[in-house]
Amino acid sequence: MNPIPNVLAERYASPAITGIWSPEGKVRLERELWIAVMKAQRELGLDIPAEAIADYERVRDSIDTASIARRERQTRHDVKARIDEFCELAGHEHIHKGMTSRDLTENVEQLQIFRSLEVIRLKSIAAFAALCDRARENRDIILTARTHNVAAQPTTLGKRLAMFAEELAGGLTALEHLIQSYPVRGLKGATGTQLDQINLFGGDFMKVSALESQIAHHLGLPAAFIAVGQVYPRSLDFRVVSTLCDLGSGPSSFAKTLRLMAGHELASEGFSPGQTGSSAMPHKMNSRSCERINGFHTILKGHVTMAAGLAGDQWNEGDVSCSVVRRVVLPDAFFALDGLLETTLTVLRQMEVFPAVIARETERYLPFLLTTTFLMEAVKNGVGRETAHEAIKEHAIAAVRGLRDGSVTENDVLKRIAGDSRLNLSRARLDELFAAGANKTGAATVQVNAIAALANDWLAKYPAAAGVQPGEIL
Amino acid sequence: MNPIPNVLAERYASPAITGIWSPEGKVRLERELWIAVMKAQRELGLDIPAEAIADYERVRDSIDTASIARRERQTRHDVKARIDEFCELAGHEHIHKGMTSRDLTENVEQLQIFRSLEVIRLKSIAAFAALCDRARENRDIILTARTHNVAAQPTTLGKRLAMFAEELAGGLTALEHLIQSYPVRGLKGATGTQLDQINLFGGDFMKVSALESQIAHHLGLPAAFIAVGQVYPRSLDFRVVSTLCDLGSGPSSFAKTLRLMAGHELASEGFSPGQTGSSAMPHKMNSRSCERINGFHTILKGHVTMAAGLAGDQWNEGDVSCSVVRRVVLPDAFFALDGLLETTLTVLRQMEVFPAVIARETERYLPFLLTTTFLMEAVKNGVGRETAHEAIKEHAIAAVRGLRDGSVTENDVLKRIAGDSRLNLSRARLDELFAAGANKTGAATVQVNAIAALANDWLAKYPAAAGVQPGEIL
Amino acid sequence: MNPIPNVLAERYASPAITGIWSPEGKVRLERELWIAVMKAQRELGLDIPAEAIADYERVRDSIDTASIARRERQTRHDVKARIDEFCELAGHEHIHKGMTSRDLTENVEQLQIFRSLEVIRLKSIAAFAALCDRARENRDIILTARTHNVAAQPTTLGKRLAMFAEELAGGLTALEHLIQSYPVRGLKGATGTQLDQINLFGGDFMKVSALESQIAHHLGLPAAFIAVGQVYPRSLDFRVVSTLCDLGSGPSSFAKTLRLMAGHELASEGFSPGQTGSSAMPHKMNSRSCERINGFHTILKGHVTMAAGLAGDQWNEGDVSCSVVRRVVLPDAFFALDGLLETTLTVLRQMEVFPAVIARETERYLPFLLTTTFLMEAVKNGVGRETAHEAIKEHAIAAVRGLRDGSVTENDVLKRIAGDSRLNLSRARLDELFAAGANKTGAATVQVNAIAALANDWLAKYPAAAGVQPGEIL
Amino acid sequence: MNPIPNVLAERYASPAITGIWSPEGKVRLERELWIAVMKAQRELGLDIPAEAIADYERVRDSIDTASIARRERQTRHDVKARIDEFCELAGHEHIHKGMTSRDLTENVEQLQIFRSLEVIRLKSIAAFAALCDRARENRDIILTARTHNVAAQPTTLGKRLAMFAEELAGGLTALEHLIQSYPVRGLKGATGTQLDQINLFGGDFMKVSALESQIAHHLGLPAAFIAVGQVYPRSLDFRVVSTLCDLGSGPSSFAKTLRLMAGHELASEGFSPGQTGSSAMPHKMNSRSCERINGFHTILKGHVTMAAGLAGDQWNEGDVSCSVVRRVVLPDAFFALDGLLETTLTVLRQMEVFPAVIARETERYLPFLLTTTFLMEAVKNGVGRETAHEAIKEHAIAAVRGLRDGSVTENDVLKRIAGDSRLNLSRARLDELFAAGANKTGAATVQVNAIAALANDWLAKYPAAAGVQPGEIL
Repeated sequence: MNPIPNVLAERYASPAITGIWSPEGKVRLERELWIAVMKAQRELGLDIPAEAIADYERVRDSIDTASIARRERQTRHDVKARIDEFCELAGHEHIHKGMTSRDLTENVEQLQIFRSLEVIRLKSIAAFAALCDRARENRDIILTARTHNVAAQPTTLGKRLAMFAEELAGGLTALEHLIQSYPVRGLKGATGTQLDQINLFGGDFMKVSALESQIAHHLGLPAAFIAVGQVYPRSLDFRVVSTLCDLGSGPSSFAKTLRLMAGHELASEGFSPGQTGSSAMPHKMNSRSCERINGFHTILKGHVTMAAGLAGDQWNEGDVSCSVVRRVVLPDAFFALDGLLETTLTVLRQMEVFPAVIARETERYLPFLLTTTFLMEAVKNGVGRETAHEAIKEHAIAAVRGLRDGSVTENDVLKRIAGDSRLNLSRARLDELFAAGANKTGAATVQVNAIAALANDWLAKYPAAAGVQPGEIL
Repeated sequence: MNPIPNVLAERYASPAITGIWSPEGKVRLERELWIAVMKAQRELGLDIPAEAIADYERVRDSIDTASIARRERQTRHDVKARIDEFCELAGHEHIHKGMTSRDLTENVEQLQIFRSLEVIRLKSIAAFAALCDRARENRDIILTARTHNVAAQPTTLGKRLAMFAEELAGGLTALEHLIQSYPVRGLKGATGTQLDQINLFGGDFMKVSALESQIAHHLGLPAAFIAVGQVYPRSLDFRVVSTLCDLGSGPSSFAKTLRLMAGHELASEGFSPGQTGSSAMPHKMNSRSCERINGFHTILKGHVTMAAGLAGDQWNEGDVSCSVVRRVVLPDAFFALDGLLETTLTVLRQMEVFPAVIARETERYLPFLLTTTFLMEAVKNGVGRETAHEAIKEHAIAAVRGLRDGSVTENDVLKRIAGDSRLNLSRARLDELFAAGANKTGAATVQVNAIAALANDWLAKYPAAAGVQPGEIL
Repeated sequence: MNPIPNVLAERYASPAITGIWSPEGKVRLERELWIAVMKAQRELGLDIPAEAIADYERVRDSIDTASIARRERQTRHDVKARIDEFCELAGHEHIHKGMTSRDLTENVEQLQIFRSLEVIRLKSIAAFAALCDRARENRDIILTARTHNVAAQPTTLGKRLAMFAEELAGGLTALEHLIQSYPVRGLKGATGTQLDQINLFGGDFMKVSALESQIAHHLGLPAAFIAVGQVYPRSLDFRVVSTLCDLGSGPSSFAKTLRLMAGHELASEGFSPGQTGSSAMPHKMNSRSCERINGFHTILKGHVTMAAGLAGDQWNEGDVSCSVVRRVVLPDAFFALDGLLETTLTVLRQMEVFPAVIARETERYLPFLLTTTFLMEAVKNGVGRETAHEAIKEHAIAAVRGLRDGSVTENDVLKRIAGDSRLNLSRARLDELFAAGANKTGAATVQVNAIAALANDWLAKYPAAAGVQPGEIL
Repeated sequence: MNPIPNVLAERYASPAITGIWSPEGKVRLERELWIAVMKAQRELGLDIPAEAIADYERVRDSIDTASIARRERQTRHDVKARIDEFCELAGHEHIHKGMTSRDLTENVEQLQIFRSLEVIRLKSIAAFAALCDRARENRDIILTARTHNVAAQPTTLGKRLAMFAEELAGGLTALEHLIQSYPVRGLKGATGTQLDQINLFGGDFMKVSALESQIAHHLGLPAAFIAVGQVYPRSLDFRVVSTLCDLGSGPSSFAKTLRLMAGHELASEGFSPGQTGSSAMPHKMNSRSCERINGFHTILKGHVTMAAGLAGDQWNEGDVSCSVVRRVVLPDAFFALDGLLETTLTVLRQMEVFPAVIARETERYLPFLLTTTFLMEAVKNGVGRETAHEAIKEHAIAAVRGLRDGSVTENDVLKRIAGDSRLNLSRARLDELFAAGANKTGAATVQVNAIAALANDWLAKYPAAAGVQPGEIL
């Protein structure tokens, strides 16, 4: 039987992330760690020849998982099999000095997490920037804002998109802080007392402390734990997974709103170049990708529950009750968010906007939204407030009833008001007020610009984000 | 029928938090907001007399909820009732200018959240410091570290406590970043375009922008949203609630481990001064408070699910599908974490340690943990490695079997090895090795000091934390 | 300071549920339990006079919580205070024989749960029946079914409502099984060995077994645990809470879809008699109640996480780590679902349907949905399949484009096809096909009838459900 | 790069479950469905030759996923590729008549779920029976029951195990009801109106209704939905996943308690035949498998959140926002529970009990638990109640203090009391009371027998459960 693949990795996540969590990717990071440890140990006086380290570095990427598997079947010990393989390739025996299995596995998993966070940062910035691009492009398209899913006030499409971009930016700030403060467990030994490294360095605490700093530095990690046990606190995993879920929120709100807009044909997520909709039913541009974005977010919320289940549940110095959970939740949460961001980037590239339909919607609802303006104008023209209020209310209710009972198909409030001698408002003046009313979008433009400037700051800080391209999605 | 009280507020949370979320507390913050808005509007040129603001400030704390309720029954409008009450008390009508209901409610709720986060910060620092105090007091008590709940290596009780303190410190760092970057929605109007304030200031965008900054400044809030809709993105609420759950993790791991230690009589959470255990069963010092700490954490995990349910679910510019959820989850999450921290502070104050029992446990397990040391010593004395290994293994297995089948009651490995002529190890030498072995706690002491120094940094930054005292708990 | 009320109980839940969980309600159920125990103990031979039991029954409902609180302040023991109060009222001392505190509290909480489940059953049946009533009333209204939120096929409004009714019926079946198999803990003593009752009955196991059956019988409970410890397994609470969440799903799907329909003005949740929409903006019938229904469901999902957090976490014979969680989750989950059902009943009573708008939507989309029918008709009339396919596709795409770019405002596919000489289809024939097409709703009517019959079965089994009326909602 | 495997399927789940969810397994069930549909269509009059059906049946298990993948690359349509493959193998074109894609995929997924539920039922019964076997074997071993993780009362080990067995039995009953009422979606067409099948049968509703019944019958499914839309209500998936989580609770509580008992060396989960503990540290029998059981349960709780995220979220007749979630949660939840049950069966087979250690624990704590008995005996011997109470309390507290400060190592309460002339209690009498006290385990034995009888009922109903054997675990 063929193995059952990880569906998130196989169908949705990109190589940048799956490469970190694949068997080969894990071996590569493990070797990076061993090399970083050797370098630091050598710098602090341990007798490890520079050539040996160079030899290990040379073969770092020669990864033969079948050979490792053969060794494991012989020795029945997975870590030993990987040590032997690497040492034989390099022709030395200098790795894993003074290290326990957890010194290896915890740190390698943290490297996987940290490198994945860096990938996610780039992709989130790319998604933020792409959303801002769409916001700028549509900055001046007047749109009927909806609250309670019902027409409420004029806004612009650009401002609506900037709103979701800002939500994403909030998650991005949280991610940035997480990356910059992410602490690595380090070589703390079997129960966290650092006994083995202290023995290795003849009881010299300062050297062991320096060792940890240098390893973190070699690996590009910003911080280190001080007093962990066998395991690092699993609330750190919860912090990571909940930040991933946080990051998915902006795109998810955007996707949900685009699904709503597609239902009104105001916009659609578009098609990929190769993809064609049903030719017989060309109106049916299903928001399948947006639905999928929301699906990924639902998965991430389940991952949050799993990670929360591990937090605050440490017994003494630790055990492996978290092990099977972390094997699932850590890669899968990154796969899910990566798939979410890939899909978001694709939707942002393909989405279509239908300005004529958007304008028709405004025509339909704006007269209702402007009744207060009409009232004030009538009063200005000398009509009594009560009279004006009564008359306008009468027409608004009649228009709504007409639209709902089918006796009219277009909003006729303006016509009704213009024809009401009580109100002293000409059709021409009403049309003027209508045109002005549609432009009452307040600071919408200013807001779009401000959010777009934020995106530029991020791109300036991480220029590689500009080059992120989504892969083809299913 | 009496109203059903909020059980978390009534039984567990402290006045510092319940005061913020009580009906009176909410009115007070609402008035703070109105005053801050008036001040900013005045500074930016609106015609609001300084004396009027002073009059409002004077009556800010005259809160009569019964009077407000009477007004609400008349007007059938809650916000209007509270406006009228405040205006009549002050003798002016200058509040709520250019504000919609959401401009009031969203910002007031955010003020409640922000002030609660500040209370939680102080209390978390107090808990961190108290945990460090206990760690320092018990820094030199040798303890058998357990992995998989089974004896593994010597450590110290202080280091175990420092381990949990460091977990709490991680949550504290996340909280601090959240507080320092917390953005307030501001006066964005009905759909987020700031239309009403822009109208109020004659279309001057710069003034409206300055207004928002000044209001945030008056209220002590660090940042502001730019492009929100009717509501601010609910992923911010998720960020808050998941940070609260994160913060509960260190205390929860500590509580779980203390429950385990109580089962071995190594320590107990102690009794409060008034409280007495069963005099007939004085051994039964139940870890009720620690169990409750774990219970609070379970509640918070459910709150995380609720808050996650709101994130990424915004339809257009927003609606009230989040309303009832936030009415529950926002206060309750703060009540639960506050109760958790109150209980943690109490446990840390009352906990008892039984060094004699701890030492007896070490005596029981240390011989097993030192078998490698004995082996090396025998080899040093000229015994063949294989012979030594075989003999020591024999004795270790016999001792374990004896303890488990009841044929011995004390670990007799040392006696067995001393009596084995194959091994050439005297009882005196073994006792020396044993004494030395118990002291092999690596960097435990250094780690305790390092974590305690961290606590001092926090206390220096927030000195009020030193004065936090837990209330009496049930 | 006034106490902070439980917001779900105060604002949303009905007296039928809050009465069970109020302090008075709990005392009443506790007294019911004591009386049931006395009756069973007397029947099995214990010396408890019938008049004593009658005296207790007479004062059962004389509940003075203030008096109980005074006693508790004296004795500092809550159970003792309530025993003393009840005994003094009755003038006897026969309650609580051979019972531990947990024998009282666990069973009373289970009674609260069981009675609440019975209330929920009635209300769920009422909601199911009301949904079926709406389905029957709207059985023949042709509606455009949507998949991916886009027009897909003709259906009927009645069938759509029946679909959500069937989802609710699924939850109802699960609830019914839960009620019929709900096991009560019984008088198992401090650790579950039934020692105290066995002592009370002189070691007679059979009598103790009979005692438990008779108590359950007196209380109307269907089953009993056999081998529990100090506590009953908390997975039972998880089963209850997840069933409540299950039950909320049908109404929640209905509410979400009604929010979508309101966005298209196909229907609205209506207004309550007293309530008036904004007269100035009469189109703005916000789906506030439907949004609230979805909010309640989000809360319940968080409660599921809390209850799941307790399941499978029993240490030995039990402890109180679940206590604070259950104090929150048990009443609150019932309050939330009760509020959800109350709101659903109200919406079902007030909802408005706009058949003219529904028909206009069908006119707009049906031509697209019928393109295959037109194709087959053209082929029947002798047109080549390829020619017909090409021509129809051309018109469909043109029509969609026209609608989206604003060049037409009504779907003109029929006109276009009628005007295409290649296709040999007259406008009259197309109109016939159109009229027939709208009626192609398959088994929609049959399905509505079948689901409505199911509702009648439930009403026949539980006739009281027919009388359930929602209270006024906020 | 090698594909990343599904870690739960690869490492933990058994072939009985993975075979259902593998690509091949899915094709097999799909073909079963097509065959069942053809049989029913033929029985109801459609022109499908019996030989054609026989030919399809003959090649049902000839599954070549590579060939199907080749076809899919050509046609770019997955369902069509699988139709073509099956038809070419059989040499006919009779499958999939009147069926849409969802008629295929929804029902196949439900078949996967249903067949998996049946596998889980057998395995749960096997686990229940194995737990009862262990309970019976250890029925008469006196054990100190613990509440709050502290000694509370004598019970038996068998009773403790029966307690966890009963929790599992609760989940089993819920599972059985779920299986017996599980409704299948059936051939409801694109939006649920059954239009295509009605057309196929010339408008004969009765035949379409009969068709659905017969298909369900052919597939062994107990019930069918009536009025679903494009998709069946996702609350059914929530019901399934929460039942799986429910089922994991009994084993998880058992595993957690065994981890606690291992910490006291009262019992251990044992080793598998091949596996050896560290020879140097033979005391270190880590509860790795029990920890893993708890880990699986944590995963399942996250799956519950995912499934809850889909419930009550249906938009109109449905869409694919659930799709990616169900691809993850449905197989993974079964894999996780299957792994949990496999591990539980293995632990139950290998677990070791150490009666001597258990007895030593009883000796240590029983004197404290019997102080009330000693008091009553002293009073019976003529000692004043107050005098006796004071003296006994004095000795109990002294003994506890002695044990905790290390001045004594064995509980000396009996010796102290025997030596106190105030109490008039001989050591012989005290020893008699002690021996009697240990046997005060109430109905423990009776309860074990009752639970074991329940297991026998299940085995009689599902005899295949007796043959379930766990595979080798990692």
